[in-house]
Amino acid sequence: MILPIFLVFSLLSSTSNAALQDFCVADLTGPDTPTGFVCKKPAAVTVDDFVFSGLGVGGNTSNIIKAAVTPAFADKFAGVNGLGISMARLDLAVGGVVPMHTHPGGSEVLIVVSGSICAGFISSDNKVYLKSLKKGDIMAFPRGLLHFQINAGGAPALAFVSFSSERPGLQILDFALFANDLPSEIIETTTFLDDAQVKKLKGVLGGTG
Amino acid sequence: MILPIFLVFSLLSSTSNAALQDFCVADLTGPDTPTGFVCKKPAAVTVDDFVFSGLGVGGNTSNIIKAAVTPAFADKFAGVNGLGISMARLDLAVGGVVPMHTHPGGSEVLIVVSGSICAGFISSDNKVYLKSLKKGDIMAFPRGLLHFQINAGGAPALAFVSFSSERPGLQILDFALFANDLPSEIIETTTFLDDAQVKKLKGVLGGTG
Amino acid sequence: MILPIFLVFSLLSSTSNAALQDFCVADLTGPDTPTGFVCKKPAAVTVDDFVFSGLGVGGNTSNIIKAAVTPAFADKFAGVNGLGISMARLDLAVGGVVPMHTHPGGSEVLIVVSGSICAGFISSDNKVYLKSLKKGDIMAFPRGLLHFQINAGGAPALAFVSFSSERPGLQILDFALFANDLPSEIIETTTFLDDAQVKKLKGVLGGTG
Amino acid sequence: MILPIFLVFSLLSSTSNAALQDFCVADLTGPDTPTGFVCKKPAAVTVDDFVFSGLGVGGNTSNIIKAAVTPAFADKFAGVNGLGISMARLDLAVGGVVPMHTHPGGSEVLIVVSGSICAGFISSDNKVYLKSLKKGDIMAFPRGLLHFQINAGGAPALAFVSFSSERPGLQILDFALFANDLPSEIIETTTFLDDAQVKKLKGVLGGTG
Amino acid sequence: MILPIFLVFSLLSSTSNAALQDFCVADLTGPDTPTGFVCKKPAAVTVDDFVFSGLGVGGNTSNIIKAAVTPAFADKFAGVNGLGISMARLDLAVGGVVPMHTHPGGSEVLIVVSGSICAGFISSDNKVYLKSLKKGDIMAFPRGLLHFQINAGGAPALAFVSFSSERPGLQILDFALFANDLPSEIIETTTFLDDAQVKKLKGVLGGTG
Amino acid sequence: MILPIFLVFSLLSSTSNAALQDFCVADLTGPDTPTGFVCKKPAAVTVDDFVFSGLGVGGNTSNIIKAAVTPAFADKFAGVNGLGISMARLDLAVGGVVPMHTHPGGSEVLIVVSGSICAGFISSDNKVYLKSLKKGDIMAFPRGLLHFQINAGGAPALAFVSFSSERPGLQILDFALFANDLPSEIIETTTFLDDAQVKKLKGVLGGTG
Repeated sequence: MILPIFLVFSLLSSTSNAALQDFCVADLTGPDTPTGFVCKKPAAVTVDDFVFSGLGVGGNTSNIIKAAVTPAFADKFAGVNGLGISMARLDLAVGGVVPMHTHPGGSEVLIVVSGSICAGFISSDNKVYLKSLKKGDIMAFPRGLLHFQINAGGAPALAFVSFSSERPGLQILDFALFANDLPSEIIETTTFLDDAQVKKLKGVLGGTG
Repeated sequence: MILPIFLVFSLLSSTSNAALQDFCVADLTGPDTPTGFVCKKPAAVTVDDFVFSGLGVGGNTSNIIKAAVTPAFADKFAGVNGLGISMARLDLAVGGVVPMHTHPGGSEVLIVVSGSICAGFISSDNKVYLKSLKKGDIMAFPRGLLHFQINAGGAPALAFVSFSSERPGLQILDFALFANDLPSEIIETTTFLDDAQVKKLKGVLGGTG
Repeated sequence: MILPIFLVFSLLSSTSNAALQDFCVADLTGPDTPTGFVCKKPAAVTVDDFVFSGLGVGGNTSNIIKAAVTPAFADKFAGVNGLGISMARLDLAVGGVVPMHTHPGGSEVLIVVSGSICAGFISSDNKVYLKSLKKGDIMAFPRGLLHFQINAGGAPALAFVSFSSERPGLQILDFALFANDLPSEIIETTTFLDDAQVKKLKGVLGGTG
Repeated sequence: MILPIFLVFSLLSSTSNAALQDFCVADLTGPDTPTGFVCKKPAAVTVDDFVFSGLGVGGNTSNIIKAAVTPAFADKFAGVNGLGISMARLDLAVGGVVPMHTHPGGSEVLIVVSGSICAGFISSDNKVYLKSLKKGDIMAFPRGLLHFQINAGGAPALAFVSFSSERPGLQILDFALFANDLPSEIIETTTFLDDAQVKKLKGVLGGTG
Repeated sequence: MILPIFLVFSLLSSTSNAALQDFCVADLTGPDTPTGFVCKKPAAVTVDDFVFSGLGVGGNTSNIIKAAVTPAFADKFAGVNGLGISMARLDLAVGGVVPMHTHPGGSEVLIVVSGSICAGFISSDNKVYLKSLKKGDIMAFPRGLLHFQINAGGAPALAFVSFSSERPGLQILDFALFANDLPSEIIETTTFLDDAQVKKLKGVLGGTG
Repeated sequence: MILPIFLVFSLLSSTSNAALQDFCVADLTGPDTPTGFVCKKPAAVTVDDFVFSGLGVGGNTSNIIKAAVTPAFADKFAGVNGLGISMARLDLAVGGVVPMHTHPGGSEVLIVVSGSICAGFISSDNKVYLKSLKKGDIMAFPRGLLHFQINAGGAPALAFVSFSSERPGLQILDFALFANDLPSEIIETTTFLDDAQVKKLKGVLGGTG
């Protein structure tokens, strides 16, 4: 009695995910496309492609900003490729700060797991949305807008952030301006910052030109 | 007088579909992507990529559910790759039934070509949408919702279904639960079904564990 | 024992479709949006919003083209609003023809239910894709491309067409050119048609100017 | 010196979010659309639209499944409307289980904050993806596929889940089958479940018919 | 002979754009949605909704940045609502500069119509893409990335820019940081700028706090 | 002091665009996909991929239509691949005309840079939208609709057009009908044009059949 029912759906049940495409696990050895990495062969996909353990360990916050960001984007967490979602872990030591930055390709929602965080974003009409978040609070940061997070308490803070893209991008303002070879004159002309200020930050962040 | 006008548009008319991309016929030998198979070279595309004859023949309904589903998804009907549409044929002998299932990746519209069909779907708020369809009626089944079709008359029924995706997926409830190695204990815990019921259906459908 | 489980999911099961939005049935009395009509209140939605019987009756083909097109787009078939799919019925008497046209907003798949149909489309690089279709054959017409259907046999033909949009649009070439007030001079300049030809067709189709 | 620069961008800086639309905070009093609720007037938007505190409190797990799901979808968390992202909190007491379910409208990523969770999903080709997750692990569940979570340890478990949609939907299998008026005969025909089993679960879950 | 053909397509030709939706001209008096303004009634739409003359006049560059940006987004140019495209005019006097900014919602392509422009953008991995553009050159700026334009010659420069969205947004870095009430301490913490620098620019741009 | 901050973001700043994907520059040697060409390796991308100089030179209008169209689509202007935007240059000598055509894959906005242009489009309900445009005017042409441009003055006209797609396609009506092997009988049947008219235009445009 088993065989007949199998015959019915043989066309379907014999087809692999290649025919049905429930998902497209990233094959990092193949070409990239405008909508994500090409897919691993369905037969090679396992549950481990959908699981990532790298967010279970705190990042090293012994650094100048006393903070660490650990991403789980599609290049590390292959199962989310094409699914329009990804995550990252945010560790903020006392005094820690995630500097002003944007995600060009996705919106973000942050949840505070421990500690308290002062977070904010600025809209295109230059309005500031600023909030002190306590454990359990979530906050949304719309796509592409400048935003930041600061440890607002006397203890380390931990947060997890989710993105509406598996590769949301991350443009940290100071790195974009001062950690490359963008000529100082251009920076000054387009940001109105003083020459001394620009050169000081280039010195800290390793910029040239 | 012919040459000049050709010269004008030479940039365009000389460019193949690679430049203009009216369509992207599936190349099943190349990699898959989150939005469909990679494209056949335009020069290799013929009208037959856009035509499929497999739905012209009734499926074999001599089986336990007295029904047959014949899909024309992008892996068989290469021309719809990337177009966001595909079809399938549904044959229901007397007493035939397409069991409870979902299409994770697309909405469906069904048209009854002969016979009568009792069809229904259930929404996220557990409301039942149930209707007896006669020849010529069409019914929509929104993406991802559980639904089913039953021959409601004394004669064979034939329907064609269209999907809002070229690879809508198909998850048949009983196959998902009972035709693989999902441990019985987990099935029982997550569905509240009795152990005897689970084991009986695993026996019919070939499940293990 | 019933109450506790209801309490658990009370937040969810008490929420209507407004919270979950499985679908968005068109409310034709409200405003339209770039992605479809606004939604009917969930409480007002019934199964009949998802069922349409208008394709069960043949269109009247006693006309100059011996053909009839009966659409089931979102304005008539409210349940497909926002689902990215819709259908139409195509009746072709002997000698009937659906003239050269495009669907600006969606791709099409046609299935021949009775009779035989000669169908074709033309790509951006001016290549012709032409096929004689028999009962059960399906053919895809990529979005926005000029295409047509002609009864290729000695009996009436019936086909159903599906679209990858709930409002795919329909621009019939002759109506666009000759059934409005587009000045003849402009038509002639932009199509290279002779003045006599333009005026003849304007006469047939009711155009002015 | 301040005025001139303001004049330059007066067109832009004077325009509110209505012109630029960085976001579309849900106005629950207005009509719904296929892509989300209509937007609150920009002038009425505050930072509190982007913050939600409801996930900071554990749900009540004193119930039959020893679990609670607390959603933060767009109807509660207005700021995510149109952003393609939302969250929920998942509390699992010892022995707790989130029954087999799907999200018709979005993919999910789960992060275990405390305890351990056995989670799994089943693909369209009936393959089981099953994993025991410990604190800090994340797992992805592709859109529309059946999945579940079970407390796998001896202590309460806490997880946060993110979705690739602000209203992903939630179809719990047992509620869809047994907590409404779907006739028992239809359930039995489309799921192969025994009559006694169906009636038993209808009894528990309040179903009729 | 005219009437019959009209009868054939009466269903279609009698339907207005509400049924077919070729476009959705913005109705600024109605509610906004995540995908654009609600649509004007088709009967109220005229060709003037699709035409905008505001870019024909140079902006006033007698200001501190010697530049002017004149947008034609959907709130001014109602016809592009929902079409995924819009434009703006860019006037740069000698020494003029469009300061560092992003468009959160769209990519940009710029064409130099007169003069020469030094333009650049910075990617998420802090790489600088910098180019001196002459008349006729076009340059693309991917969505959400910091970019700028500087008059690179001894004569006024004129450029037109197109966006992949009808409301791409515009976040000017200095305005976002210094022209609102974002507390100086937060700015300094999240940008590493010196207090004196922050206060100086707040003085110029009218910021408080 | 430089090293620590680098360590913090080492995961991110060390990752190339492959992890973040701000853009996907077309690799014309690799396969094509439904959403665009596969991406060049990030390390191979330079600013020149985002710059195109081909629109700086007027097209040759010494031809039968006294017009020239020069496209900058993704196959020539690799940087716009996946960005949803592209451009073209339009030169119209005195008496020049861009014949009736459609772009199956994108909407268009045209800006008149010199001269004056009579432009128009026709909607699905056969309404004509016609306008005489002067220098600086912009006009939108919604996706897939028939439209045209005619030099309306006594001097050459120059316009730039932008598209909401990097490969919008271009179907010129006369080329689609008369510059290929579409049988004359089919043309006549589906367009109602006279045999003499069809054969005359086939003669001019090189059609056969």
